[in-house]
Amino acid sequence: MREVGGIGDEFAVMFMTAGATHHFALVPQNFLGGGTADYCHTGVWSGKAIEDAKRYGTVHVACSGEADRFASVPSATSWSASPRYIHYTSNETIYGTEWASPPSGPAPLVCDASSDIFSRPLPLAGHGLIYAGAQKNLGPPGITLVIGRRDFLATGTRDLPALFQYRTYDAEHSVHNTPNTFGVWMIGEVCAWIRDQGGLAAMAERNARKAKLVYDALDASKVWRAHARPGSRSNMNITFRGATKEIEEALLARAEERGMSGLRGHRSVGGLRASIYNAFPEAGVQALVDLLHEMEP
Amino acid sequence: MREVGGIGDEFAVMFMTAGATHHFALVPQNFLGGGTADYCHTGVWSGKAIEDAKRYGTVHVACSGEADRFASVPSATSWSASPRYIHYTSNETIYGTEWASPPSGPAPLVCDASSDIFSRPLPLAGHGLIYAGAQKNLGPPGITLVIGRRDFLATGTRDLPALFQYRTYDAEHSVHNTPNTFGVWMIGEVCAWIRDQGGLAAMAERNARKAKLVYDALDASKVWRAHARPGSRSNMNITFRGATKEIEEALLARAEERGMSGLRGHRSVGGLRASIYNAFPEAGVQALVDLLHEMEP
Repeated sequence: MREVGGIGDEFAVMFMTAGATHHFALVPQNFLGGGTADYCHTGVWSGKAIEDAKRYGTVHVACSGEADRFASVPSATSWSASPRYIHYTSNETIYGTEWASPPSGPAPLVCDASSDIFSRPLPLAGHGLIYAGAQKNLGPPGITLVIGRRDFLATGTRDLPALFQYRTYDAEHSVHNTPNTFGVWMIGEVCAWIRDQGGLAAMAERNARKAKLVYDALDASKVWRAHARPGSRSNMNITFRGATKEIEEALLARAEERGMSGLRGHRSVGGLRASIYNAFPEAGVQALVDLLHEMEP
Repeated sequence: MREVGGIGDEFAVMFMTAGATHHFALVPQNFLGGGTADYCHTGVWSGKAIEDAKRYGTVHVACSGEADRFASVPSATSWSASPRYIHYTSNETIYGTEWASPPSGPAPLVCDASSDIFSRPLPLAGHGLIYAGAQKNLGPPGITLVIGRRDFLATGTRDLPALFQYRTYDAEHSVHNTPNTFGVWMIGEVCAWIRDQGGLAAMAERNARKAKLVYDALDASKVWRAHARPGSRSNMNITFRGATKEIEEALLARAEERGMSGLRGHRSVGGLRASIYNAFPEAGVQALVDLLHEMEP
């Protein structure tokens, strides 16, 4: 894990029996302490994180993609005076956007990296905490990987049950209670696979190549249109629309015939979505591109 | 699950991505609300539950086995005036005691059944909530089964993030977030196995028979002595001592040679412990009994 992620000893590597969404409350419970934290609002997941954080202090929305229908990661930010931390969601699965590089502000970054962790080299600089539900690029659901800078963990409150404090998982090597052992083992296997693929730089190169195949097809199309704007586009989740509802349904039906599933967009935004995580093969991406081409007028 | 457990519709069956020890805080967070709850103190695990509950209200220890070195489940109880609930730990893994039948008091029972659930028929009457980490009799670690009486769930606070409220798991069929899917699947497989074994009554009969073999050998012995008193003895964890430290070490060494592991008592109490959960075969119990006999003077 440390070798694959390039994670130095200034960071703790922790496994928690939890889903990513548990951390929407755990982060402010540990680090907000009635103060102010800045949140970057880039879609559904950061919206949920903001709602949970409000229970534990003041949330300042420092930037939002809402006016752009979350088609882009906001470039203009307005930080508060002295936030405890800055929270952002590195990849937005539902709108299909991704931070090309982390925001930069006046406090440690806290990143929900659930849906793009290990798809590219970890941008550890500036981060206090990175949390990631395992089920996209790491392993099975029911476990989260947490990478925490030790000097940031030390700023957390001690006024919580031990299992709800991040520092406990560092101090007790993630075995204060019995963890999701199958999940931990699977994550180890996945890390070995990533290493054998050439590591995170190689994963990033492969993921960029896979995504470019689809985005190029969409940009050149007369009927398909990508939702996310260039510069904010996700290499993990590609969201797009057809010129009509009918052609979208036709694509879904034809895809189904070929054994391609999961292309319907999230019910909250509609349209279509191709999720192409680390494990998704290039041949599968090519099959989608072929289908898109076939349906051009 | 409902069929195997004999669980009617007045109860919700929920799967939570959590360990049993998370519930030490979740139960009072949901149901204590600054009031008083009664706790039965029968060893290490109920002790931890008591410590966590104190953060959220008043804990009244209604009975304690501490004066008896936790060798028995207390029979005398002193309930508070109007507790929100009564918490007990149906089986104490470290001291090797088990409630033959649940306590009876002036409030709904909340039971930590992690280490004996599905070892015998579920005593649902009187219970508001039963929670059980999966890793003894149900499946892999990293998931808890929660059986909650719906009218009791309705008394919980709504002033918590959704994932921390038990009612959410009932209302959204345990998929408010992505659960530990491998764990859920495994629990289903284990329930099918229990059904094929004849159900919970058959498991109880088999577990009683297995445990009796060991307790009979201990009670007839010149060198071995059971820790738990008759009437309070666990059918899951049998704790015992040798006449000397030397004979205990000799037994551990001889057991190791025969591939029998895990017989050393928990470091907090010392001595020896045989954990014979549902999956542990009768032949293994007989092998231990043979070894105990061999070492008699």
